[in-house]
Amino acid sequence: MVEASKTSKAERFTYGMVGGGPGSFIGAVHRAALHLGGNASLVCGCFSRDIEKSRETAAELGLDETRVYTSFAEMAQAEAARPDRPDFMVVTTPNASHYDACRAFLLQGFSVMCEKPLTVTSAQAEELKRLAQAHGCLFGVSYVYSGHVMAKEARRLIRDGVIGDVRMVMAEYPQEWLIDVVEGENKQAGWRTDPALSGSANCVGDIGSHIENTVAYMTGLRITRLLANLDVVGEGRSLDTNAEILLRYDNGASGCYWCSQIAAGYDNALKVRIFGTLGAIEFEQEQSNYLKLTLKGEPPRLLSRGNGYISAAAAAYSRLPSGHPEGYHEALCNLYDQFLQAIAAKRRGETVEAADYDYPGIEMGIDGVRFIEACVESSKQGAVWVEL
Amino acid sequence: MVEASKTSKAERFTYGMVGGGPGSFIGAVHRAALHLGGNASLVCGCFSRDIEKSRETAAELGLDETRVYTSFAEMAQAEAARPDRPDFMVVTTPNASHYDACRAFLLQGFSVMCEKPLTVTSAQAEELKRLAQAHGCLFGVSYVYSGHVMAKEARRLIRDGVIGDVRMVMAEYPQEWLIDVVEGENKQAGWRTDPALSGSANCVGDIGSHIENTVAYMTGLRITRLLANLDVVGEGRSLDTNAEILLRYDNGASGCYWCSQIAAGYDNALKVRIFGTLGAIEFEQEQSNYLKLTLKGEPPRLLSRGNGYISAAAAAYSRLPSGHPEGYHEALCNLYDQFLQAIAAKRRGETVEAADYDYPGIEMGIDGVRFIEACVESSKQGAVWVEL
Amino acid sequence: MVEASKTSKAERFTYGMVGGGPGSFIGAVHRAALHLGGNASLVCGCFSRDIEKSRETAAELGLDETRVYTSFAEMAQAEAARPDRPDFMVVTTPNASHYDACRAFLLQGFSVMCEKPLTVTSAQAEELKRLAQAHGCLFGVSYVYSGHVMAKEARRLIRDGVIGDVRMVMAEYPQEWLIDVVEGENKQAGWRTDPALSGSANCVGDIGSHIENTVAYMTGLRITRLLANLDVVGEGRSLDTNAEILLRYDNGASGCYWCSQIAAGYDNALKVRIFGTLGAIEFEQEQSNYLKLTLKGEPPRLLSRGNGYISAAAAAYSRLPSGHPEGYHEALCNLYDQFLQAIAAKRRGETVEAADYDYPGIEMGIDGVRFIEACVESSKQGAVWVEL
Amino acid sequence: MVEASKTSKAERFTYGMVGGGPGSFIGAVHRAALHLGGNASLVCGCFSRDIEKSRETAAELGLDETRVYTSFAEMAQAEAARPDRPDFMVVTTPNASHYDACRAFLLQGFSVMCEKPLTVTSAQAEELKRLAQAHGCLFGVSYVYSGHVMAKEARRLIRDGVIGDVRMVMAEYPQEWLIDVVEGENKQAGWRTDPALSGSANCVGDIGSHIENTVAYMTGLRITRLLANLDVVGEGRSLDTNAEILLRYDNGASGCYWCSQIAAGYDNALKVRIFGTLGAIEFEQEQSNYLKLTLKGEPPRLLSRGNGYISAAAAAYSRLPSGHPEGYHEALCNLYDQFLQAIAAKRRGETVEAADYDYPGIEMGIDGVRFIEACVESSKQGAVWVEL
Repeated sequence: MVEASKTSKAERFTYGMVGGGPGSFIGAVHRAALHLGGNASLVCGCFSRDIEKSRETAAELGLDETRVYTSFAEMAQAEAARPDRPDFMVVTTPNASHYDACRAFLLQGFSVMCEKPLTVTSAQAEELKRLAQAHGCLFGVSYVYSGHVMAKEARRLIRDGVIGDVRMVMAEYPQEWLIDVVEGENKQAGWRTDPALSGSANCVGDIGSHIENTVAYMTGLRITRLLANLDVVGEGRSLDTNAEILLRYDNGASGCYWCSQIAAGYDNALKVRIFGTLGAIEFEQEQSNYLKLTLKGEPPRLLSRGNGYISAAAAAYSRLPSGHPEGYHEALCNLYDQFLQAIAAKRRGETVEAADYDYPGIEMGIDGVRFIEACVESSKQGAVWVEL
Repeated sequence: MVEASKTSKAERFTYGMVGGGPGSFIGAVHRAALHLGGNASLVCGCFSRDIEKSRETAAELGLDETRVYTSFAEMAQAEAARPDRPDFMVVTTPNASHYDACRAFLLQGFSVMCEKPLTVTSAQAEELKRLAQAHGCLFGVSYVYSGHVMAKEARRLIRDGVIGDVRMVMAEYPQEWLIDVVEGENKQAGWRTDPALSGSANCVGDIGSHIENTVAYMTGLRITRLLANLDVVGEGRSLDTNAEILLRYDNGASGCYWCSQIAAGYDNALKVRIFGTLGAIEFEQEQSNYLKLTLKGEPPRLLSRGNGYISAAAAAYSRLPSGHPEGYHEALCNLYDQFLQAIAAKRRGETVEAADYDYPGIEMGIDGVRFIEACVESSKQGAVWVEL
Repeated sequence: MVEASKTSKAERFTYGMVGGGPGSFIGAVHRAALHLGGNASLVCGCFSRDIEKSRETAAELGLDETRVYTSFAEMAQAEAARPDRPDFMVVTTPNASHYDACRAFLLQGFSVMCEKPLTVTSAQAEELKRLAQAHGCLFGVSYVYSGHVMAKEARRLIRDGVIGDVRMVMAEYPQEWLIDVVEGENKQAGWRTDPALSGSANCVGDIGSHIENTVAYMTGLRITRLLANLDVVGEGRSLDTNAEILLRYDNGASGCYWCSQIAAGYDNALKVRIFGTLGAIEFEQEQSNYLKLTLKGEPPRLLSRGNGYISAAAAAYSRLPSGHPEGYHEALCNLYDQFLQAIAAKRRGETVEAADYDYPGIEMGIDGVRFIEACVESSKQGAVWVEL
Repeated sequence: MVEASKTSKAERFTYGMVGGGPGSFIGAVHRAALHLGGNASLVCGCFSRDIEKSRETAAELGLDETRVYTSFAEMAQAEAARPDRPDFMVVTTPNASHYDACRAFLLQGFSVMCEKPLTVTSAQAEELKRLAQAHGCLFGVSYVYSGHVMAKEARRLIRDGVIGDVRMVMAEYPQEWLIDVVEGENKQAGWRTDPALSGSANCVGDIGSHIENTVAYMTGLRITRLLANLDVVGEGRSLDTNAEILLRYDNGASGCYWCSQIAAGYDNALKVRIFGTLGAIEFEQEQSNYLKLTLKGEPPRLLSRGNGYISAAAAAYSRLPSGHPEGYHEALCNLYDQFLQAIAAKRRGETVEAADYDYPGIEMGIDGVRFIEACVESSKQGAVWVEL
C-alpha cells in the first residue's frame, strides 16, 4: 500500500473541472481540497451549462479565458490536443451527466475523479470501467468519508481483528434540510429531487450511497441481499427523502441503514457502528477527529486523531497535531493525495495497481450504483428482499 | 387524567409477590420502588420454587413466616381467605409462568402488577384481560420506561402537536451482556435464552418489547405491519439475541427498531427518536433526566427534568429538583403511584377507568405480546411483512 | 472497612427528624432515601417551627400524633425518656439551627445525621465533636455525593495509585437558580441568602462545601492554604452567589474551585477533575453512573456503574445492573447504609471506629466549616491567601 | 466592518516566511491555510537557521532557490530591493526571535503576520507597534481561534446583548503532551520549555495567551487586575507547565482561567464559558463547529455552523454547509482573509483602519504580552494581585 505523502509538494499536477459554477457546492470544495494539498493547479473548466456563468467563475479563479469551454465535449477534445494537457479531470455535475462527461474524458485518455454516485445505471458504470481500462486511465470516485484519518483507523482496527468477526452493522445518515418543500426548491435541493438530473433515487443516491461506501471501506464486506423501504415525503416530490434498509453481508452479518433528509435536528450526521465478536467501533463524520472503540467487557475508549496510540498507517494522513480539528477539506484532500500519487507513478511510466492506492476507485463506484438500484427495485416491489 | 400524588403517604397498601428470590433482579427492584413510594408494605410472598430460598428471602425482608408459600396457587387461595387480604399482587417470575400466576390471582379477585412481556401467547393475554374484567380486578404491566418524567414530557409534547405529525420513528435498545455464550449461562441469561422459560423470543421479548411500548406510549400510534429479522447468535442458543425490525404505523409513518444483546459498549441503551413535520424528540433511558427537542430550523434544545419549562403534568412526577438525578427506581415508583391511586379509588368504591390513570394496563400488555408474535412470525417466514 | 450491606433488611431502625416540613426540600429526600433502604422507620418529628405545619406533615406520613413536637428541645427530652427511644435523629433545618438541634440530641445520647454545612462556626462544630464523644454518639454529616458508587470507585482508583500522585484538582459546582433576585425570594432561596439562617456564606456554604468534601473524600488530601474571591451578585443580597477559589494541598498539589448560583444553563453541575502523574479522573454528579478515567498516553475510558470492571468494594453499593440509572436517592441511601451498620454494631455493644465506616463523619463536618470560614476570611481581606 | 470575502480568488498575493522548516509545526499550518485560501503564493523564505534544512524545505515547496535565505535580516534586505517584493511576511519562529524578525521586516516596509505571543517583553511589542505605524505597515498576530465562525458568532451574540452584561468568565486550556519530561524533549516541547527561546513563560505564554485573546475577542472586556499561580512541574524544567489565574475585568466581572500541559486526557481543549445577566455562551475549540447558547430559564441550545439561524456576518466566513466540519485550517484562513483584504486596500492606495478588519492586530499582540508579564509577576511575588 502506498503511504500518504501529503507533505511532498515538489511534484506538480494540473487539472480541469466540469461543474462547480456559481451557486454550486461540491465543485468549490474539490478546488479548496486541492488547494489545501498545494500541488495541483486548475487550468481549464466548463463550470456551468451557461457559458457566461462559466466565465464568471473562471475570472474569479484567475483562469486563462481561452481554456473555458461551453461543453465538456468541447473541453475534452480541445484539452486533449494541447501539449500541456491536464493530468486529470474532475467531474462535479449533477448525477445524470456524470456518465457522458466521464466518457468524453476517458475517450481522450484523461484520468478522472468523479463525484458519487458514479452514474444513473450500473450498466453505465460498467461501461466507464471498460473505457478506463481500454484507455489506460485512472478513475476515482470521491466518496469523501473514507478520507478521514479515523475512518482509516477504523478500517485498520477491523482488518487487524481488534473487534473480531463483524456480526452487525448499524449505520445512518440523517439530515434536516428537505423537511419542507420550498417553492422552486433551491439549487441544491432542486436537482437532487428531480429524476431527470438525479436519477432514480434522491436520498438513497445522495447519502444512502455514502453509508454503503463507508461501511464497505471499513469492513471490506459485500452486501449479498437487501430490503429497502423508500418514503417519498413532501407534496409534489417524486423521489425518496427517507429510507430504511435491511441488509445481509457475505460473511452472514446483518445490517440496518437509515438515511433521511427530513429529520429535524440533524445536519449531516453520518454515523457508522460496527459490532464484532470482540468489540465495536463507532464513527461519526461530524466528529471525524474521534473514534469510539469498545472491547467487550471493557469501558468504551474515545480515540482522538493525532495521538501516539493511532497506527502509523492512519496517522500518516494527519496534517495537524491532536486537538487541532481537521474536517471535510482534509478528508477530500486525502483522497486526492493517493490519486495524485497514482497519477505521478503512471506519469513516470510505472504500472499502477489501483489496489495499491487508498482512494475509492471505479469498483466502489459500480458497487454504489448497484446498491442504489437494488434499493429502488426492492422498494418498488413493496420492500422485499432482493439479491445483489 | 389523575395527577401524580407521590407525596401522599397517608393512604397505606399491602401486597404480595411472586418471584424475586435470591439471585433474581427485577423482584428486588419492585420492592425497592415500592419502598421509595413509602406507602405499600409487602405482606406475603412466594419468592422461589425452592421453599428454602423463599424463606431465606422472607427472613431477610422481615416477613411473617406464615405468609411464605410454596406456590402461587397456594398463596392465591390462602391470602384470599384472610380478612386482611393484600391490595394487590406483583408477578416478577420468568415470562412463561406469568399467565398461570396472574390467572390464579385474578380468579381470587386480586389486582395484579405483572412484569413484561405479559404472557407467551396473545391468546393468554386476552384471557387475562377477560378474567380481570370478570373479577373486577385492576391490571398493570410494568413497562418501566413510561414512568420517567421526561418520557411523560415527550408524550405531552407530541400530543400537543409540538413536533407536528409523526413521520418516522427510529428506536433501538442495544446491550452487551450476552456477547459471549457462558458455560451454564448465569441465572439472568439462562432463563431468558431458554424457550421453556422465556417463550418464543428472547431479545425481542425482553427488550424489543420495551421499544414497542415506549414508542406506543409516547406517540399513541399503532403498528399496522412489520418485518423482522431475528438473529440467533451464540453457539447452542435457540432464541434470538439480535433483531432488526421495520414497521409501518396507522398514520402512515415508518419506523425502524433495533434491539441487541451482543452489542459491545452498550449497557441498556434504549433510545427513541421520533420525527415529525415540525420537529423531533429524542429520549435515552440511560439519560432519563433529559430530553432533546428540536424544532425545524432551530438549534436542538436539551430539556432537563425539574426546570420551569417542563409541563406541570409531567413535573408532578418529579421527586427531586433539577440536576438531582432520578433513575430507574423513580420511574417504576411512578407506575405504582398511579396504580395505587386506582386501587385506592376502587377501595373507596369508585368506578375506575383505566384510561384515567397513567400506568401501562392490560391493553399495552396484549399489544406487547402481539408485537413479539408478529416479529417471530415474520422472521420465521424469511423476514417478510406481516400484518398486525 | 465495613462492606455495603444494602440488601440486609432484617435489622430494623427507628428515627426522628427535625425539619422537612411543607415546602422544604431536603427533609423529604432523607425520608425517601431511608424508605428506599427499607429498614428504617420514622417515629417522631418536629418538621416546622409552626406546629400546625408540623402536624400536617406528620399526618401525611402516618405518624403517631403524640410524637410530633413543637421544638427539638422538647423532642429530645420526651423521646429520650421513652423505652422505645429512636436509634438516631436526622437534622435537616437551615444551617443556623444545626448546632442547637444537634447539641440537644447529643446531650440526650442520640446519634445524629445532620445536613451540611454542619454549623455556622468551626467552634460549634468542634463542640459537637466533643459532645458526641462524651455521650458515645455516632455522628454523620450528609455530604451526599460521596455516596455515589462511582465516587467510591474514584476514591478507590486514586488510593490504588492508578492515576499516580495528584498534581492538580479542578472542580466546579455551577447552578442557575439564583440568577435573578425574586421579590420575596422563594423558601429555598430565602433562607440560603439570609445570613441569620444560612451563616456567613451562601454559595460557598451550600455548594462550595460540597466541592470541598467530594475532593477530600476522593483524594484524601488536606487543604493547607486557599484564596477566595466571593461575589455578591443580586441587588439587596448580602451573601455570596459566585466564588472562585485557589488552593494548595498538603502534598503540594494546586487546586481551583468554582461555585456559582448565577450560571445560566447549569442545574446542579458538580464536576470534579483530579489530575495525577499517571492519569486523571473526572466525575460529574449529574452523570453519577459514569466515571471518566484516562491513563496518560491512552484514550479516555468511560466507566459505567454495574459493569464487571468496577471494583468489588464500590460495586457492593450498586442496587441496579449497568445501564439502569441510579441517582441522588441511592447516593444518600448509601450513606445511611453505613451509618445504620455502625448503629447496629453499637447496639450490639461493639466498639465502633468511625474510620471503619464509609459515611462522612464529624471530622468532615468540621473540615467543611473551616473551609467556609477560610473562604469568607480570604475574600473579606481582598482575596488573599489564608492558611488552614 | 469589512465582510469576509473568502471566495474572491481573483486578487493575488505573495509572501515570504521565517520559520516553518523541517520538524516545525505552525509554519506548515500557515502555508496550508494560505493554500486553502487559494490566492497567496509563497515566494521566499528562511525556514531554518540551518541553510541546508531551509533549502530542503524550499525544494519540497517548489520555491525558487535564489529566494532562500540564511537569515531574516538578509531576506528583509534582499526582498525589499526587488521590484516584485512580496506583499507580506509571515513570522513563525520560536517566541524569542519574533521581535528581531518583525523589526527587520517593518524597517523595510513589509506588512507582517506574526505568531503569538508577539514578543518576550511588552516594551518590544510597543516598539513593533511604533515601527509599524512609522513605516505604514499592516500587522497581524495569528491568534487563530478568533477565526472560527462560531467564535465570531459568540462575539456577535454578546455584542448584541443576547446574554446581557457579562458577570463571570470561566475559561481553560488543558493539554496532556508535557505530562512527562522526556530525555532531550522533542523539538516542540524543547523550545517551549526553554527560557532562551520561549521567554519568561511556557504554559501561560503558549496557551494561556490563547485564553486571554479568545475571551477578549468575544467579550471586548479588558482585564484590570489578575492573580496567577504558576506551577513548574517536571524535573529539570524551569518554566511553568500549569497555571491557575483569577481575574477582574473593567466592567466588574470576575474570571478564572486554567491552562495546563500536564492534564491527562486533554489534547488541545480550549473552552470558554461566558456568563451574563440574561444567559451564557460556551465555546470549545475542539468542537469549533458548535456553540452552546443558554438563555436564563430556557433549555440550552446547541448552535451548529452553517444553519440558517447563524447571523449573516458570522456565516460569511463559512466555507462548507452545516454538518461538514471545518477546523483549524479554516480558522487561520479566515484571519488571512481579512488581513489580505486590508493589504489589497492598502495596495489600492486606500487608508486602512485596523478596526475595520476582523483579524487580531498589534494591540491584541501587546495585550497578550502584558497578560503574560502580569501572570509571571504575580506568581513570582507569591500569587498576589497585580494591576494591569
